[in-house]
Amino acid sequence: MNSVVNWNATYRTDDERMLVAVNVSKENVARSLGGPFGAAIFESDSGRLVSVGMNSVVRLNNCTLHAEMVAFMMAQRRVESFTLNTPSLPPHDLYTSCEPCAMCLGATLWSGVRRVVYGATREDASRLNFDEGPVFPESYRYLEERGLLFVREVLRAEAKAVLEAYRADRGEIYNG
Amino acid sequence: MNSVVNWNATYRTDDERMLVAVNVSKENVARSLGGPFGAAIFESDSGRLVSVGMNSVVRLNNCTLHAEMVAFMMAQRRVESFTLNTPSLPPHDLYTSCEPCAMCLGATLWSGVRRVVYGATREDASRLNFDEGPVFPESYRYLEERGLLFVREVLRAEAKAVLEAYRADRGEIYNG
Repeated sequence: MNSVVNWNATYRTDDERMLVAVNVSKENVARSLGGPFGAAIFESDSGRLVSVGMNSVVRLNNCTLHAEMVAFMMAQRRVESFTLNTPSLPPHDLYTSCEPCAMCLGATLWSGVRRVVYGATREDASRLNFDEGPVFPESYRYLEERGLLFVREVLRAEAKAVLEAYRADRGEIYNG
Repeated sequence: MNSVVNWNATYRTDDERMLVAVNVSKENVARSLGGPFGAAIFESDSGRLVSVGMNSVVRLNNCTLHAEMVAFMMAQRRVESFTLNTPSLPPHDLYTSCEPCAMCLGATLWSGVRRVVYGATREDASRLNFDEGPVFPESYRYLEERGLLFVREVLRAEAKAVLEAYRADRGEIYNG
């Protein structure tokens, strides 16, 4: 993903950071590597890019490898900690091109990120018949009560455009 | 885990299959490999053991590696499919020593297992301050409406005993 990611840049705004996640989703489709979903993790304050993740379910025969999960795994490997929420580390945020499914939303709590910023919505994904699983308003309340912050619909149009292009191209809708 | 698993046996009953998951959880603690959680996936009809999984979060610096997730990954790798619910495969069931957290419960839907059988309950895990995340009665309803079956509290006492032994031994409660 080095063509769409600059590991040495400082990404200052939510829009700049989300654009990385969206570009990863787009590149994942362009290279036929997986579903139209991308994610990235940044240090909240410095704007340093820590990891990216792309949907790799079909390619790697692994139902758990949604973009967010790959980004969590890569970030935790990089910082050598099973949680990004630890005194020795600065706060980290997740940017994901689409609202997380039930699995990924559950994982946000274990990941240690402080903020979850998403682009396209559950409804946008559902138009492609991607199921998002058992996520309810009280799921978000539960997570917010534990300190997680959610920022919604950042670059939604750009993220949704990748979903729609995937649909138009009849990309595989696994677990539909 | 070969000391507690016989890959050539036929496991006929829910109790026999759950005992594999519980024994894996026990062995994981005995070897100081991770949290007190084990899982196993079987072909529903033949009773063939397909995979086991053990909590590996701390050891591998990876918040996603709960026992159930490891079992899904291993099974899907073994059958070379991102879902166990496909016409070329017989039905598969998940046995897990403890009620799945929000992440793992979400993943059951993507995994393609037909039945989820668990031992210890959310309340049993909470006594150790392990959080289970945003799981609600409607989470189960959502999954049941999509064809998943849940069987609860199989060998609960045996599974709970492993949790309690871990607590007595002051095992690490990550993400507490």
